[in-house]
Amino acid sequence: MSTPYRIDGLQYANWSPKIFAQMAEGGVHAVHVTIAYHETFREMVLQVERWNRYFEQHPDRLMMGRTAADIDTARATGRTAVFFGFQNPSPIEDDIGLVEICHSLGARFMQLTYNNQSLLATGCYEDEDPGVTRMGRQVIAEMNRVGLVVDMSHSAERSTLEAIDIARRPIAITHANPAWWHPARRNKSDAVLRALTARGGMLGFSVYPHHLRDGSACSLQSFCEMIAESADRYGAENLGIGTDLCQDQPDSVVKWMRVGRWSKEIDYGEGTADNAGFPPMPGWFEDNRHFGNIENGLRNAGLSEDDVAGIMGGNWYRFFAENFVPE
Amino acid sequence: MSTPYRIDGLQYANWSPKIFAQMAEGGVHAVHVTIAYHETFREMVLQVERWNRYFEQHPDRLMMGRTAADIDTARATGRTAVFFGFQNPSPIEDDIGLVEICHSLGARFMQLTYNNQSLLATGCYEDEDPGVTRMGRQVIAEMNRVGLVVDMSHSAERSTLEAIDIARRPIAITHANPAWWHPARRNKSDAVLRALTARGGMLGFSVYPHHLRDGSACSLQSFCEMIAESADRYGAENLGIGTDLCQDQPDSVVKWMRVGRWSKEIDYGEGTADNAGFPPMPGWFEDNRHFGNIENGLRNAGLSEDDVAGIMGGNWYRFFAENFVPE
Repeated sequence: MSTPYRIDGLQYANWSPKIFAQMAEGGVHAVHVTIAYHETFREMVLQVERWNRYFEQHPDRLMMGRTAADIDTARATGRTAVFFGFQNPSPIEDDIGLVEICHSLGARFMQLTYNNQSLLATGCYEDEDPGVTRMGRQVIAEMNRVGLVVDMSHSAERSTLEAIDIARRPIAITHANPAWWHPARRNKSDAVLRALTARGGMLGFSVYPHHLRDGSACSLQSFCEMIAESADRYGAENLGIGTDLCQDQPDSVVKWMRVGRWSKEIDYGEGTADNAGFPPMPGWFEDNRHFGNIENGLRNAGLSEDDVAGIMGGNWYRFFAENFVPE
Repeated sequence: MSTPYRIDGLQYANWSPKIFAQMAEGGVHAVHVTIAYHETFREMVLQVERWNRYFEQHPDRLMMGRTAADIDTARATGRTAVFFGFQNPSPIEDDIGLVEICHSLGARFMQLTYNNQSLLATGCYEDEDPGVTRMGRQVIAEMNRVGLVVDMSHSAERSTLEAIDIARRPIAITHANPAWWHPARRNKSDAVLRALTARGGMLGFSVYPHHLRDGSACSLQSFCEMIAESADRYGAENLGIGTDLCQDQPDSVVKWMRVGRWSKEIDYGEGTADNAGFPPMPGWFEDNRHFGNIENGLRNAGLSEDDVAGIMGGNWYRFFAENFVPE
């Protein structure tokens, strides 16, 4: 019997051989990594180039992920398959043809927005949410055609509901939690999560402290009971992990994520002037070696072995297999 | 028994449904098409986008070619597999990481120069040829690593000999003829062709009138006798066709090819002020429907059936199979 899949639906670490070794130690077979926040197309390509060098220099640890089958190869050879994603549509600029180009370069997830209004939809920090734009409708159809998954993790309510409805294929919220557990602006309403999962979409549970009840002090038990409750509400088969692990990042990076080039004034996003940097991770999930803690926590919360295996990776595997290939 | 392969080593047509139908009528299973002369990376990506739309709109005629196996699919389904190439290294700009990116986007051939000095090597219109540059050596190694074929069709003598020698894998001259048959600046010396083929490199014979003895009036017999003589000198297994067909192009395009943005003055390249546009093709090869004329001409020139099948496509097929994949 093969080891059950262990897949992380989102990370944005300051990548290093140390972290690659921790992924191996933690038995992580696949990870969706963010390679763009505010980057133009050409700037995003530089990030792909950077990953190509990692793949060349660390062939024992890493491989590029394009299809679900690559996860099996990675699992069989003790490596991690890396799948690319964007947290903002900035890399496609105003050019719908870049959707397929980005997919050719390995992109498998793209958020329609990152906090602000984009050309496609509205982010969760805007006061008004007029929904999916004209270009947004065209781009969703094109993403569906080529196999680039719509991710609404940072989007506003109406835009998210409309994207779920407009898309011909299931969409994802790769890294967020239910607002009924912790009412943060980035967490999602019950209505959104019901609509998402009713259409076969996936929710990846975040361990980023701003998304957790009690922040960095959140207990593993509370986190796992929230997942068990979500399984009751939305079906365990539509759930996965999306840690949002931002390991070893300097605070300059969170500034780029929040402000990019769009403002001359500082915007603290989920943080505050007093707590502007990356918050400390909870002790039960400090890095990739701690996935076993979540797995045990889910068992202790009463989930079945099948449900635990699905949430830890099997469900993402199925979703990747169905949604990364052209229609 | 399958139809023998029919593969063209280079075309740069003003693409249209008419030409796609002519490729089907001519039984062309694969063609290497030029998508860049002086384009930057981003401008080249726009050309890939344009081809992606052709593939989407003409699925009965075309498919993207990435590997030799795609030629078998195209042949089995009556389509043409289209492989991308650049006649200049401008799309990689000054960034060696773009070599792998371009390969990911489908590029399979890249000339190190187009007539002028480039960052990598020297073109055949320069007065001096100092050989392959520092960056050129690095880029050749990277092209070999990822499976992007070095093409020296427009390069100068010393640069070409050095590229053949530096490269770990065979290189190609996709579209040119021997200078001993027609001493044009773009045609290649016996020394270059011997060195090329001794290392397993391929020569694609051009039908572009400036490369032909007697230009547009060149006879099919003369062309095919030249190929038979080349088979004696270099081995039939290292020979193919690279028509350089520039069908239906307006003269504005030949101006872009020759002058790009590098000069404010007109440069006529192989043409003259009196004959500045595309010259008329010989009557025995006006478009893709006429490959059968060349095939028959080769038989009449005394080549064996095996040699004819190899030159018409089998040799390119083998070369694609061996050289388009990473090391």
